Amino acid sequence: MARETVVDSRQEILRIAARLFQQRGYDATSMNDVAAALKLSKGGLYHHFQSKDEILFEIMNHAMEITQERVLNPVRGIADPEERLRALIRLHIEVVLSPRDREITVMLHENHPLPPALRKRINSRKKDYIHFLESLMGEVQDKVQKAAHQEAHRKLQPLHHARRKVSPRAAAFALLGMINWIYQWYKPEGELQAQNLIPQFTDLIFGGIFA
Amino acid sequence: MARETVVDSRQEILRIAARLFQQRGYDATSMNDVAAALKLSKGGLYHHFQSKDEILFEIMNHAMEITQERVLNPVRGIADPEERLRALIRLHIEVVLSPRDREITVMLHENHPLPPALRKRINSRKKDYIHFLESLMGEVQDKVQKAAHQEAHRKLQPLHHARRKVSPRAAAFALLGMINWIYQWYKPEGELQAQNLIPQFTDLIFGGIFA
Repeated sequence: MARETVVDSRQEILRIAARLFQQRGYDATSMNDVAAALKLSKGGLYHHFQSKDEILFEIMNHAMEITQERVLNPVRGIADPEERLRALIRLHIEVVLSPRDREITVMLHENHPLPPALRKRINSRKKDYIHFLESLMGEVQDKVQKAAHQEAHRKLQPLHHARRKVSPRAAAFALLGMINWIYQWYKPEGELQAQNLIPQFTDLIFGGIFA
Repeated sequence: MARETVVDSRQEILRIAARLFQQRGYDATSMNDVAAALKLSKGGLYHHFQSKDEILFEIMNHAMEITQERVLNPVRGIADPEERLRALIRLHIEVVLSPRDREITVMLHENHPLPPALRKRINSRKKDYIHFLESLMGEVQDKVQKAAHQEAHRKLQPLHHARRKVSPRAAAFALLGMINWIYQWYKPEGELQAQNLIPQFTDLIFGGIFA
């Protein structure tokens, strides 16, 4: 129980710090500002985090954990690669648009230079995600190509070898760009919301990688 | 001649300031740091720019001017919407990857809050670009749909009305995300370079908006 309370309060600190960093800029926000927003003494804040860099690192790390728990873990269990990719697009957009976690996940794009050891840990988690997505794009393309081969074979038709036009790597970066850019234009009162954005971005990617 | 020298030196200040901001972070870089990197006295720097905010605004404004001159102006003259979109994708990727201007254009994504009046001017130029791209996406879709109608009419075939699956607006944001995200993963020594990235992103978008 005691441990849970501590975890909750750390997450609350991260959420409020992320909001402040976005409103005022990371460097312009002091540890004093963060403590004041949390109604903590400066000592109380330093009890949890030794520095502002540590807070930024923990926000980014928490953002990667959210992505792991709400996007990667649920889709790993999906056997069919097409369905896996559809689910990944949907879940990732949902995380990025989640009112509760939006401020946390946006901080992944903060370009304040972290100390090298901390930056390395975040970058390594980001790379894992890119590699997962790249393999998945390849699997989806292979599956569709194989199905086309079998269909041609069944009908005794010749098949022009479909050259992969969009590589899995370029497709992975394209999708990440589309999704991670959302915070730059998204408006809660705007026309584009999760329910119409998810099918459109899904169609765009599926149409695009089989162009 | 005198005017040209002044303009050149302002642009040189902006380029070097942009590089420093990216290496050290905007807030962590002082006017002293910028002056030192330019081998200027602090007074010499203040002769050109009154504040760091003014430098940041001028960097962003210069980035939008580069986009105007090297992307928008050249494509406006292209009559065919498909060719216009192909040219826009190519030219925009080239600007984003240009070694000379990369540091300037990346600063468009700096999330340091500018004074409201300055922010408004940058946002208004960004919006103009989005609207141009949105109309272009719509024109390209309309043209292809019209051609399909004419073809069906010529062959006396019925045509299932192709519903637009990806709206011009979603397509515009998707493309901007794909291109503006490049700076997050691009490596000058990497496999993905302008010559293979441009055709892949072009295929992805054209495949996607006609999915």
